[in-house]
Amino acid sequence: MAKVGDRVKVQSSDTNYEGTVIPSSDKQKDVLMLKLNSGYNIGIKIDKNTKINIIGEFSGIKASPPEKYSHKPGLPNVTLIATGGTIGSKVDYKTGAVHMLMSPDELIANVPELTEIVNLKKILRPFSLASEDMSSAEWQKIAEEVEKELNSGADGVIVTHGTDTLHYTGAALSFMLKNLSKPIAIVGGQRSSDRGSFDGAMNLICAAHYCKSNIAEVAIIMHAEPSDSYCFAIRGTKARKMHTSRRDAFRPINDLPFAKIWKDGRIEIINKNFRERKDTKVSVESRFENKIALIKYFPGADPAILDYFVKEKYKGMIIEATGLGHVAVQPLNKKNSWLGAIKNAIAKGVLVCFAPQTIYGRLDPFVYSNARMLHDAGVLYLGDMLPETAYVKLGHVLAYEKHIEQAKKMMLENMAGEINEKISEESFLY
Amino acid sequence: MAKVGDRVKVQSSDTNYEGTVIPSSDKQKDVLMLKLNSGYNIGIKIDKNTKINIIGEFSGIKASPPEKYSHKPGLPNVTLIATGGTIGSKVDYKTGAVHMLMSPDELIANVPELTEIVNLKKILRPFSLASEDMSSAEWQKIAEEVEKELNSGADGVIVTHGTDTLHYTGAALSFMLKNLSKPIAIVGGQRSSDRGSFDGAMNLICAAHYCKSNIAEVAIIMHAEPSDSYCFAIRGTKARKMHTSRRDAFRPINDLPFAKIWKDGRIEIINKNFRERKDTKVSVESRFENKIALIKYFPGADPAILDYFVKEKYKGMIIEATGLGHVAVQPLNKKNSWLGAIKNAIAKGVLVCFAPQTIYGRLDPFVYSNARMLHDAGVLYLGDMLPETAYVKLGHVLAYEKHIEQAKKMMLENMAGEINEKISEESFLY
Repeated sequence: MAKVGDRVKVQSSDTNYEGTVIPSSDKQKDVLMLKLNSGYNIGIKIDKNTKINIIGEFSGIKASPPEKYSHKPGLPNVTLIATGGTIGSKVDYKTGAVHMLMSPDELIANVPELTEIVNLKKILRPFSLASEDMSSAEWQKIAEEVEKELNSGADGVIVTHGTDTLHYTGAALSFMLKNLSKPIAIVGGQRSSDRGSFDGAMNLICAAHYCKSNIAEVAIIMHAEPSDSYCFAIRGTKARKMHTSRRDAFRPINDLPFAKIWKDGRIEIINKNFRERKDTKVSVESRFENKIALIKYFPGADPAILDYFVKEKYKGMIIEATGLGHVAVQPLNKKNSWLGAIKNAIAKGVLVCFAPQTIYGRLDPFVYSNARMLHDAGVLYLGDMLPETAYVKLGHVLAYEKHIEQAKKMMLENMAGEINEKISEESFLY
Repeated sequence: MAKVGDRVKVQSSDTNYEGTVIPSSDKQKDVLMLKLNSGYNIGIKIDKNTKINIIGEFSGIKASPPEKYSHKPGLPNVTLIATGGTIGSKVDYKTGAVHMLMSPDELIANVPELTEIVNLKKILRPFSLASEDMSSAEWQKIAEEVEKELNSGADGVIVTHGTDTLHYTGAALSFMLKNLSKPIAIVGGQRSSDRGSFDGAMNLICAAHYCKSNIAEVAIIMHAEPSDSYCFAIRGTKARKMHTSRRDAFRPINDLPFAKIWKDGRIEIINKNFRERKDTKVSVESRFENKIALIKYFPGADPAILDYFVKEKYKGMIIEATGLGHVAVQPLNKKNSWLGAIKNAIAKGVLVCFAPQTIYGRLDPFVYSNARMLHDAGVLYLGDMLPETAYVKLGHVLAYEKHIEQAKKMMLENMAGEINEKISEESFLY
């Protein structure tokens, strides 16, 4: 009988298939799950007419304990940190919802190629959460694990993660890990592992290739196109989930991806602006100030919301402003003006920053008079920083710097590629 | 001496130019502003060596009162409603900021071709505001003016508008104008009229062409590409400003544009899903419920913000949820869960809706268990509706329907193309 990881040829009543056996659902004992050469998974109903020929027995994955994964000399040592999300899930056939969690071993068994690319030195599972249930406590946990692994021999780290807030975590790791000298790949799936369109396998394979690369940056490794053509490696501070469901939902914003990565290991560098791999220690600064808010401005928004945050002793806020960095300043109905409430917040010591609601592009406080007035009142204009990245950076900065003028200076310093002085024309809607 | 609107050939010390004279800044008396055939504006310093030959005298624009604009038989009657914004502004050379407002006449003088395409039957200027200073009161005013004009002989209406919140106004007019039977073009500029890269001229020309078309919809008419190639006509409920400064910042979301429109009047229909021009009356429903909020979820967001809105007697809220429609439901730190606060808001009669934070794509409450729990709690999932459009629709619906179940039904009814049952693959990052 064929077992997980074996290469097989299957002859069923009408068609022939060739692929690798992957784990089947417990509910479907008579179905053989195959990962085809195309990267797609299929389930083949097995009956008395089905012939299965094992054409290559797989011996890479022996048993659950991580230390038992095969170690091939010459391959880099990579730690996998599994945090939950679709990439580690399958459908619960009772309810139809995706939430049956797999063990990391099961996940790896789904992607047997992994062990041919890197030595999976260690598998960690600090928690298992849907990414919308995560917050700064989880970012801290991941950052601390990554630091420990890198400083004890790992040549790279793969973090598997739910996709909903994967880009927030990308920013968090970028800011929390200092003097980064190895590649960190954050990878998710938009389809669960038991679906034919499972994208996590290719994403994981490309993440493993990324960990062998020279790019010592936190990058999000996800499909670049709807098909299984190649992945992007996108800077953790310049990525955004731009579609609810597409496999190529993650896009670089105001930046080009570091690279395109193919399943076969080919890496095409697109953006040379990265730190290179070194043999130096990494440090972690994982504290986070949680008393901060991300607020989206909208026409008619009552400025009293700012008073609420001041009253609740918030230390900082990122306001998603319109256009080049505007909110109502001179409306006909004076009660709608945000200028007074913003001045009050600043007077109370709140760090008020603007980031672009348009997502793409750069703020500029010097073109229109409304923005000049806001800028003069002390609003910090964050250039081309993504609102989500700005939120994470603000929590990071305020955890370490209580002096507001110093914190403002840090917000405008380019810490982890979050500010791009020169945005390529090509990067719009890339 | 050449006057505004004249076609001239200019011979200066080094180069020759041919174009149309447009108004110059009062501060630069010795500069002749020319719109070149390429669409770009230039300022030519006039000295004793400059020769100006008038090759075509312009007689279209006679004087300020609108009734005096030339009327050419056979051209449709179009009303222009000027509301402010960059398209009606030029740089104040004293401060360097853009805020010197032009009269609508001056605006039209900058675009003399307009009067060759349509009869500008009437020019209205209900107010003059930067669009970030507008809110529902201004949307109501514009909608009411549009209705009056359409029901008294206008074949179409052009609304000039600041770009920051132009898409919110696009949605507002789409919902407020009922039984629309004529084209409504909303048009802005990303560069002021005295800059060489002024885009408002081409946008206005294409808007005039749109008003001659058969498309009886509210559309945003803006550059489709950075160059002066052609404009898009984008559905008012499916448009978003996606860049702080590019001339092609407005993009269709989850939809294809109605059409591409060229300066020469060529119109290529891309999306046939529109109402056609008819000779029927239009009605207006311009009431708006202002006690609503647009709230962006972010990791670690304190659910107490929802309690604040409930306490302040808000009637409804649009929450920008992550991925397919999620917020924290089962976080490790129970205090971060939004489920309780959402249930409480719903119990207090607040209409709680989710729209996609990813911008592109469609929500689906039936894939993951967190969303199922939120859906079961009574959260209304708004499919592929843009958060900004959803906000405007909620204010419109709650102004007319106090019964919450009925209001929920209306939110899910496709009123003005805001819900797209079938999204073309091509439309992602279009």
